[in-house]
Amino acid sequence: MKQFISVYDVPNINALVEKALAYKANPFADRQLGADKRIGLLFLNPSLRTRLSTQVAARNLGMEAIVFNVDKEGWALEFEEGAIMSGNTVEHIKDAAPILGQYFDILCIRTFPSLKNREEDYSEMFIHQFIKYAGVPVVSLESATLHPLQSLTDIITIQEHYRTQHTKRKPKIVLTWAPHVKPLPQCVANSFSQWINAWGEADFVITHPQDYELAEQFTKGAAITHDQDAALKDADYVYVKNWSTYNDYGKIYENDPAWMLTEEKLKASNNAKVMHCLPVRRNVELSDEILDSAHSLVTQQAGNRVWAAQTVLAELLQSGK
Amino acid sequence: MKQFISVYDVPNINALVEKALAYKANPFADRQLGADKRIGLLFLNPSLRTRLSTQVAARNLGMEAIVFNVDKEGWALEFEEGAIMSGNTVEHIKDAAPILGQYFDILCIRTFPSLKNREEDYSEMFIHQFIKYAGVPVVSLESATLHPLQSLTDIITIQEHYRTQHTKRKPKIVLTWAPHVKPLPQCVANSFSQWINAWGEADFVITHPQDYELAEQFTKGAAITHDQDAALKDADYVYVKNWSTYNDYGKIYENDPAWMLTEEKLKASNNAKVMHCLPVRRNVELSDEILDSAHSLVTQQAGNRVWAAQTVLAELLQSGK
Amino acid sequence: MKQFISVYDVPNINALVEKALAYKANPFADRQLGADKRIGLLFLNPSLRTRLSTQVAARNLGMEAIVFNVDKEGWALEFEEGAIMSGNTVEHIKDAAPILGQYFDILCIRTFPSLKNREEDYSEMFIHQFIKYAGVPVVSLESATLHPLQSLTDIITIQEHYRTQHTKRKPKIVLTWAPHVKPLPQCVANSFSQWINAWGEADFVITHPQDYELAEQFTKGAAITHDQDAALKDADYVYVKNWSTYNDYGKIYENDPAWMLTEEKLKASNNAKVMHCLPVRRNVELSDEILDSAHSLVTQQAGNRVWAAQTVLAELLQSGK
Repeated sequence: MKQFISVYDVPNINALVEKALAYKANPFADRQLGADKRIGLLFLNPSLRTRLSTQVAARNLGMEAIVFNVDKEGWALEFEEGAIMSGNTVEHIKDAAPILGQYFDILCIRTFPSLKNREEDYSEMFIHQFIKYAGVPVVSLESATLHPLQSLTDIITIQEHYRTQHTKRKPKIVLTWAPHVKPLPQCVANSFSQWINAWGEADFVITHPQDYELAEQFTKGAAITHDQDAALKDADYVYVKNWSTYNDYGKIYENDPAWMLTEEKLKASNNAKVMHCLPVRRNVELSDEILDSAHSLVTQQAGNRVWAAQTVLAELLQSGK
Repeated sequence: MKQFISVYDVPNINALVEKALAYKANPFADRQLGADKRIGLLFLNPSLRTRLSTQVAARNLGMEAIVFNVDKEGWALEFEEGAIMSGNTVEHIKDAAPILGQYFDILCIRTFPSLKNREEDYSEMFIHQFIKYAGVPVVSLESATLHPLQSLTDIITIQEHYRTQHTKRKPKIVLTWAPHVKPLPQCVANSFSQWINAWGEADFVITHPQDYELAEQFTKGAAITHDQDAALKDADYVYVKNWSTYNDYGKIYENDPAWMLTEEKLKASNNAKVMHCLPVRRNVELSDEILDSAHSLVTQQAGNRVWAAQTVLAELLQSGK
Repeated sequence: MKQFISVYDVPNINALVEKALAYKANPFADRQLGADKRIGLLFLNPSLRTRLSTQVAARNLGMEAIVFNVDKEGWALEFEEGAIMSGNTVEHIKDAAPILGQYFDILCIRTFPSLKNREEDYSEMFIHQFIKYAGVPVVSLESATLHPLQSLTDIITIQEHYRTQHTKRKPKIVLTWAPHVKPLPQCVANSFSQWINAWGEADFVITHPQDYELAEQFTKGAAITHDQDAALKDADYVYVKNWSTYNDYGKIYENDPAWMLTEEKLKASNNAKVMHCLPVRRNVELSDEILDSAHSLVTQQAGNRVWAAQTVLAELLQSGK
């Protein structure tokens, strides 16, 4: 593995899952792997779980992790080729990235979409420019359209739980849209769709209100319906997430509270486990009654972020040898 | 010791003091105690001494310390049970705390009071909610009403100095209110009162202008007077601190500059040493003439923050074994 | 070496350069030198290269490095002696510095000039007050008028490159003013001038438009001209930097885009290498055509920040033994 930007960087999802669960059982198994190696974590947007879990993961491998909040501790970066920098951007990624590549062995970066210009966001210019100039392996800590460490975590969590069920039947996994108070990126939903489709070991259904269609490049392979009740029927895992519109980009068209998942709705499921990437707006996206019940996997899921990150960093370190 | 929120978590104050002074003499005596352990320091409010001294203390014990400025690097947390999170708060403490508890072996948290709603502040909801959901030992880095690491430091500093005086007489300790430019929490004064009373090895007097009475739950056992001169008579230690009103909550009623401690006033004392938790507004709370004189213990006191924190962390690590 | 504030702290520039290049060849040669030592990095102003390179340098020596963004994580510091602190400053440097000196073995600090009051800026009050009260060795991470770690880096980079040219002729080094969009400090230009003059092994020319004269205390020894073309003739190294006016302090008098360095202008040089401390405003200060060409040393230069910092820290650690 040379970088970790999307599922296309992963030769074998199940091998990553096994490695992650092995690290969970024995966090310090590879404590020497990252000796004298340094990882830089660059945040252009805020983060709690992603930052802390990646720092913990790096330390478990013996790496030094240094965090840099570009937005708060640094200055605005320019990403456009040929820009005449007489405005607010202070440094071009062409200059910053290769220097960071000299200081660090692996670079991780988080950037969010503008939600204003779809073509620009979906070109993933920021992270691609960064990769182009960094000269060392790059890990996405969430980019404009994807969140691969989250999606790897999600599959780890599903597999970890599903093997306790002792069944050979494929699980039914449902991704359901949920209401929110402001327009959010499509990253987590895109990425989850991309990974579950690539994994191929589930019956995968996506449900959302009209007008919330995701980009087909990610959803292709899933069944898509506007009927949430039908989607939830016999579900084993329900992944709850809000996203703003993709077609008429970055909007909230309808925000019907009836789309919030409830215990009542879950009755049609196969006693489904409920997942969410967090942070979650309680009683807006998901009710207390579900989050505080045995249905919820969210804490276990967030805890697994460490093992996903540790696995990816270990793969990059091992590939580099 | 299972947590460190107030003096009630401490079985034996003097034992902590001895341990702290032993660490001061030999900082790396327990350098292996925290191996493979991680401590998370969460700040909902800014901090200089508390943050840095706790980081240093953790490293002296071989622990990895990770700082997270929730207010600046993260987002607003919700603490109310049952909240419908359609406002500004992005994540509930019920979701954030257990995840942090998975990432860290010990969690430290700083939260300030609103100074608007006394009942809410004095319920210490923030830190209690955090403890309830964290699942690992929690250390207060100052909460809405108390600052126990500061108070432990204060008793360490008093004992460290007083034993050089070779007297068996109990020291006279005075807590005196001082003027300030804005309304401050009562935390340091509450906590100092609680600890000196619980310690029980001093004659303890609190002096402040009318209307600045502190909560009796903390001051009970101390003599209280509005006559600063009478309080200072024969004092061995004078602890200077501003606080806003407790009864008519969070106000500045009177801010008479005459309450600022001077060399002249100290003449009635027993050549008293002067203490302050810092930061101090020079020439408002305390004059240059005192801070720059041999009366001042403030630098030594702030330095002792390391040994207080190291002692508390060591106790928690040892209890957990 | 007892501190690192300007070239006057350095007994032998060439010895530092050799040490830095040795570290570049073998980063972990002195990995035990800083064991159990701690370095505090205080930023009153933002930083990317300086912060990260110093953190990396400290870790290469086995030191723990702790970053503190005073402006964002702390509060406003007071630097005036005798100030009545009833305004916005929360803590006096007289109180903060000695405490930091108890927590850390070496303190590094970055402060910027106001660009409003020349006498105040050029008195370097902030860093001198800090040194006065810290009680441990202090390293400038850029102060109001100088940036010595940058200048040491610059001489390392020039020597590293020039020895590949196998000539005994002194190199011709040109410092040229460049346009910018806002008034910048004179630090980098002052410091570069001071170091090149003190080093004494180059023909040194400074060129800038009328009214941009630098302080003579730094430039004395260099040839100074308003004729950029004449300056560039036969140059081996061209150091590009904007600065605001020194005489009528902190202003932009003229901002002629014709002063931007181009390939065309470089034709008169001795195939000169181009340097810049970064961040650089592309196509304002320096054109893409130069930055992306073989003329540019800027990435190598920024990478060398690590070895400059590591050398200075090692010298301070070794002096302290």
